[in-house]
Amino acid sequence: MIQTPYLLFLGDAPDQLAAKVAQGIKDWRPENAVGQFRMEGCGADLGITDMSLADAKAAGAKTLVIGVANRGGVISDAWKKVLVEALQMGFDIASGLHNLLRDEDELVAAARVNGRTLFDVRIPSVAYPIANGKKRTGKRCLAIGTDCSVGKMYTGMAMDAEMQKRGLKSTFRPTGQTGILITGGGVPLDAVIADFMAGAVEYLTPDNDPDHWDHIEGQGSLFHVSYSGVTMALIHGGQPDALILAHEPTRTHMRGLPEYDLPSLEALRDSGLAMAHIANPACKVAGISVNTQHMSEDEALAYLAEVEDRMGLPTVDTYRQGAGRLVDAILAL
Amino acid sequence: MIQTPYLLFLGDAPDQLAAKVAQGIKDWRPENAVGQFRMEGCGADLGITDMSLADAKAAGAKTLVIGVANRGGVISDAWKKVLVEALQMGFDIASGLHNLLRDEDELVAAARVNGRTLFDVRIPSVAYPIANGKKRTGKRCLAIGTDCSVGKMYTGMAMDAEMQKRGLKSTFRPTGQTGILITGGGVPLDAVIADFMAGAVEYLTPDNDPDHWDHIEGQGSLFHVSYSGVTMALIHGGQPDALILAHEPTRTHMRGLPEYDLPSLEALRDSGLAMAHIANPACKVAGISVNTQHMSEDEALAYLAEVEDRMGLPTVDTYRQGAGRLVDAILAL
Repeated sequence: MIQTPYLLFLGDAPDQLAAKVAQGIKDWRPENAVGQFRMEGCGADLGITDMSLADAKAAGAKTLVIGVANRGGVISDAWKKVLVEALQMGFDIASGLHNLLRDEDELVAAARVNGRTLFDVRIPSVAYPIANGKKRTGKRCLAIGTDCSVGKMYTGMAMDAEMQKRGLKSTFRPTGQTGILITGGGVPLDAVIADFMAGAVEYLTPDNDPDHWDHIEGQGSLFHVSYSGVTMALIHGGQPDALILAHEPTRTHMRGLPEYDLPSLEALRDSGLAMAHIANPACKVAGISVNTQHMSEDEALAYLAEVEDRMGLPTVDTYRQGAGRLVDAILAL
Repeated sequence: MIQTPYLLFLGDAPDQLAAKVAQGIKDWRPENAVGQFRMEGCGADLGITDMSLADAKAAGAKTLVIGVANRGGVISDAWKKVLVEALQMGFDIASGLHNLLRDEDELVAAARVNGRTLFDVRIPSVAYPIANGKKRTGKRCLAIGTDCSVGKMYTGMAMDAEMQKRGLKSTFRPTGQTGILITGGGVPLDAVIADFMAGAVEYLTPDNDPDHWDHIEGQGSLFHVSYSGVTMALIHGGQPDALILAHEPTRTHMRGLPEYDLPSLEALRDSGLAMAHIANPACKVAGISVNTQHMSEDEALAYLAEVEDRMGLPTVDTYRQGAGRLVDAILAL
């Protein structure tokens, strides 16, 4: 686990979008974000206190989190200067960049000398077991999508937050870099070796109280030929009790695959449920989460109503409407 | 690619079963096996010429292949002595053992000094791309199983051999250690990183002549919760034109999963085809390959006839009956 709270490093992020990871931390775990560190030319602003390394240290920050996508795929010398200083001041550093911290000799040396830890959350840090398929106690919910990047993580985070708000037992279980940095732990599933994928998901979602819900972050799509194997491992390793169907209605083709159409929600429901029943015959589809960000409010509401009527399942945009009805639906199963 | 032909190293294999990999090479690629090397106490015998390293060198062997599972998971000092001598004499070494050749300092040093190559076929040697899903030329056949280890590799090898015998264009495409050692190349799919699984299968089965068939080695099962993600990547990365259903009728539960029943052949057909149609809408189930090794000849023939009648598909045990009818079936598609 990465130690919280964090100082959010925005570096010289050209714009707000480049600081997506930091924004996610600030939105979902504001208590983890004591401040932001911006360099000259930074075009992003989270609206939280700007802090020097010393300010952040005094405010109790334990880890500097690189909350920004870097330019050109490398950790620049300007960044490195700040990062080395942070290690010297006693911060750990966590990053989801492709350019690994551990591949930078200066950072490795500074971490060693100062007894600090570098967390490359893109790389598994655990030797996961092979899945054993044994039934676990507690409840699990998984969002599966008609495509990649349709709001599965957001849905899981929103359902977890709603359950926390109601005082119910609930944990969000990240399976990607952003989720891991937001919560401080998880499994970078797309970087796990094939034989251990389902076992990594079992490891992530262990036995729990009978009334506890894990909200497992989905990845890929059964219908996305590049990543469907990862999705399958989530369905079988996660042995979900509830599935949420996730969809983005304005997509014209599968992400990155111009020759591939999106499946219907009906096809997703049928394939997802058939596969989920192998690991958990009691699994049910509880609701539908639609990302309507590219629709007007009127269009969105009309679309949601049409889908709800057609599919006979609670259908919401969790960003516009919250996750209350989806939580109601899984609790009613 | 591993250089052929091979000297098959049986070491001190306690019995014939421990020499399964060597047996596979001798059965399927006898032209690759110039001789066997046995140490004191070896209980296995392939029925080919016993050779010293010098004999094998003189007979043209290029690579020493470790064709045996080792005891206790380590490469013993007695083995190492032979392997170092082989490197000094100019052999490459290939192995599918968990105990990697590259983790043995003595072997690494001897390979470097003598300019030889160590092939650990369990570990990918290529940075595979992410799958792009583009339709490729040529035809592909994949066996999918009701369970793991039901004869998928054997089926693919037998169909390839039958096509070769008929003078047709055909290639067996290994996805596991044994197949890679038998043919000298392939992808160790269960050791590939999740995001690149389907891309590795695309890499393994590139564009080819319109009348050429790849026989892709299957792995796992859509119904085996530990490995289903690997199977899914084969179905989507391989974009098969033909599926063969593979089954072992005496299994009482899924391999290694006592709580899990085997699916019916109907369920395998329906799930497999639904998933295959995502990558290739023209895919068809061509036939059924049953491993009847635990049945008498009479039982086996009765069972095969019953399944053929029920499923309406050519149903054979390729070991007892050859793969002729399955090849006829894919050619007739």
